[in-house]
Amino acid sequence: MAKNKALKNSRSSQLQLGIVGGGQLAQMLALEAAPLGIQVHILSEKERDPAVQVCKNWQKGNPNSRKDVIEFSQKLDLLTFESEFYEMTSYFEIQEKALQGASLPLRQESPSLSIFPSPEAMQILQNRSSQKAALIKAKIPVAPSIEVNTKEDLTQAWQKFPKGFVLKKCRGGYDGYGTYYCQSQDDLVKLHALFPAEFIAEPLISFKRELAVTLIRSQDGSLETLPLVESHQEQSRCDWVIGPVKHKKLSGLLKKISHLLQQLNYVGCVSFELFDTGTELLVNEVAPRVHNSAHYSQEALSHSQFLLHVLAGLGEKFPKVKLLSPAFCMSNLVGQSNEPAEIPCNLSGHLHWYGKDENRVGRKMGHVNYTGAATKELLKKALLERKKFKL
Amino acid sequence: MAKNKALKNSRSSQLQLGIVGGGQLAQMLALEAAPLGIQVHILSEKERDPAVQVCKNWQKGNPNSRKDVIEFSQKLDLLTFESEFYEMTSYFEIQEKALQGASLPLRQESPSLSIFPSPEAMQILQNRSSQKAALIKAKIPVAPSIEVNTKEDLTQAWQKFPKGFVLKKCRGGYDGYGTYYCQSQDDLVKLHALFPAEFIAEPLISFKRELAVTLIRSQDGSLETLPLVESHQEQSRCDWVIGPVKHKKLSGLLKKISHLLQQLNYVGCVSFELFDTGTELLVNEVAPRVHNSAHYSQEALSHSQFLLHVLAGLGEKFPKVKLLSPAFCMSNLVGQSNEPAEIPCNLSGHLHWYGKDENRVGRKMGHVNYTGAATKELLKKALLERKKFKL
Repeated sequence: MAKNKALKNSRSSQLQLGIVGGGQLAQMLALEAAPLGIQVHILSEKERDPAVQVCKNWQKGNPNSRKDVIEFSQKLDLLTFESEFYEMTSYFEIQEKALQGASLPLRQESPSLSIFPSPEAMQILQNRSSQKAALIKAKIPVAPSIEVNTKEDLTQAWQKFPKGFVLKKCRGGYDGYGTYYCQSQDDLVKLHALFPAEFIAEPLISFKRELAVTLIRSQDGSLETLPLVESHQEQSRCDWVIGPVKHKKLSGLLKKISHLLQQLNYVGCVSFELFDTGTELLVNEVAPRVHNSAHYSQEALSHSQFLLHVLAGLGEKFPKVKLLSPAFCMSNLVGQSNEPAEIPCNLSGHLHWYGKDENRVGRKMGHVNYTGAATKELLKKALLERKKFKL
Repeated sequence: MAKNKALKNSRSSQLQLGIVGGGQLAQMLALEAAPLGIQVHILSEKERDPAVQVCKNWQKGNPNSRKDVIEFSQKLDLLTFESEFYEMTSYFEIQEKALQGASLPLRQESPSLSIFPSPEAMQILQNRSSQKAALIKAKIPVAPSIEVNTKEDLTQAWQKFPKGFVLKKCRGGYDGYGTYYCQSQDDLVKLHALFPAEFIAEPLISFKRELAVTLIRSQDGSLETLPLVESHQEQSRCDWVIGPVKHKKLSGLLKKISHLLQQLNYVGCVSFELFDTGTELLVNEVAPRVHNSAHYSQEALSHSQFLLHVLAGLGEKFPKVKLLSPAFCMSNLVGQSNEPAEIPCNLSGHLHWYGKDENRVGRKMGHVNYTGAATKELLKKALLERKKFKL
């Protein structure tokens, strides 16, 4: 595991940052990185990917192809990920070579390519099974779970969680993809078709509300915690977020999270999705990247999650992050049809449209951020204005 | 002159905006336009231009070439300018054709290409002589001036302004380029070499401080006025800006400016550089575009000048623009050498680095915005942090 690096006094104005992935998260990272004096490169498969629209340097390629990743890395001083689901083997290889001194060859000007978060941290957190083990080791409260790899394991899960359970794919699940509910014998039979495969099963947790907290950790170990938010899901997909909210168990949880991130030598942005059960705060999921639940930070905070993620990768100290308004709300714009989308004029919120090639049912097309005095009014306004979109 | 258009209820998510010019102003416009669901196109001459780094759609071309401009326009629904100094003939032609109904041919989806500000307004304001005439017609206080086109005119200027005068090129002058001081017979003899050419001469104005105000006017005539600022120049180039400042003559001036913009049917952002003589507020110069003196708006306001310029062109109503902190300061980063620039780590302000191909003496390389309680402390901090840059 790489050691914490000493903070530097200055940096070149010619740094090259590679972002693996071309979706909206990569796009918003690229938009914030450019004004920092960083040349951004995108590795993605399609020319119409959102990040490619806002970036001159695009390499068409597959983030899981060794050849493409090695070629990409040769242009870079820094590399980061838009998603946690890439195969890490090539990234480990690049990191090794970079540590040995540029035999790849890496960029002459900067033989010390730095990958953040590290492939080690990514590998642990990208798999629900090893992610849960890491959370448990750090004494962070989570829902109980068992591994389910075969039809027999599935039957055992039904015995262990007779009130029903949720199956979550160990790798690659997001926005409800890779998540299956089992609440009856019928469900059980249908789910047989999935196996053999790597899943975990968790009992259905009854919770009051879903919360989320995003942290950013820099190379020197300093940690910035963004406000706690409430997030509302529709069909397992983030629908809206409001905040800031309070929870008496938060500070205790943050201490344990801080310890976990230190153990992982984590660098960059990381989001924790939480269940507020009324008595407890359980971690449901960890996303080692910028996250939908912190998009509000673009207008509600003095520095967004995207900017802070890049600063962390640069090895900089964090600036003082200020909340710019008493309350905020973020509403997601999700495709409802396959017809071209229409955007209403005269929105009172801040639009972030991702410029995807086409509208599709269930596809995240953009979001709108609102700031103001109270979350209740902001949410009301957000939901009203959202109806004016043709999605 | 085009009529005010009625406000629309919604717009396509596939609008194509062309920005003529590829420098930092075009770059910052492009960064703010993309999240509005607009595909940005840049027309500029060099691949290493700042705007080209943050935009997929680049057309290499000359903004003064009819062929390049016509080709560029065929991709667009909307067109705007980064600079006021382009030759307007081709833009008039495009506007005519668009009004007649797309015989160019323009984009099939949208045969009504809209140019903002209009070529008419650009043509009047891009020439110091016609600009001054428009200001005088609108009863806006300005320094007296005479036109100077020949050596004989120059001698007359010296007779009219015996305490010295400044010669300003009618077209193309900025950041001190195209500006010459005449304070002695020696100066006068040297300046002979410039003629014949189009200049205006103004007496040297003694002023307490330089101020600036930026306004944005939408298609329906609604007008947003950003805070009044004080700007400090070094060698005729903007060095820093602080604000907000007050001036008892401002509201009277704004009424006249509003009338002028209405007369011009102006759409978009426009900046007025002012001399505060102690008793009067004189307009020194008008820039029909986004402007260095309003860069502070990126972090000090809820909506930046770049965003508001694009919203104006879209024909939208302006959102409520809020000042996010009691005071702000912007400090320009100007090249001091031809060596590669270095950026200090851990800045407390918000960096906007333009990513130019090379550092050069006198070249604007970036700026830093600060927000806080009082301008005095912010300016002190800004000037201290600026010393840490290697420029």
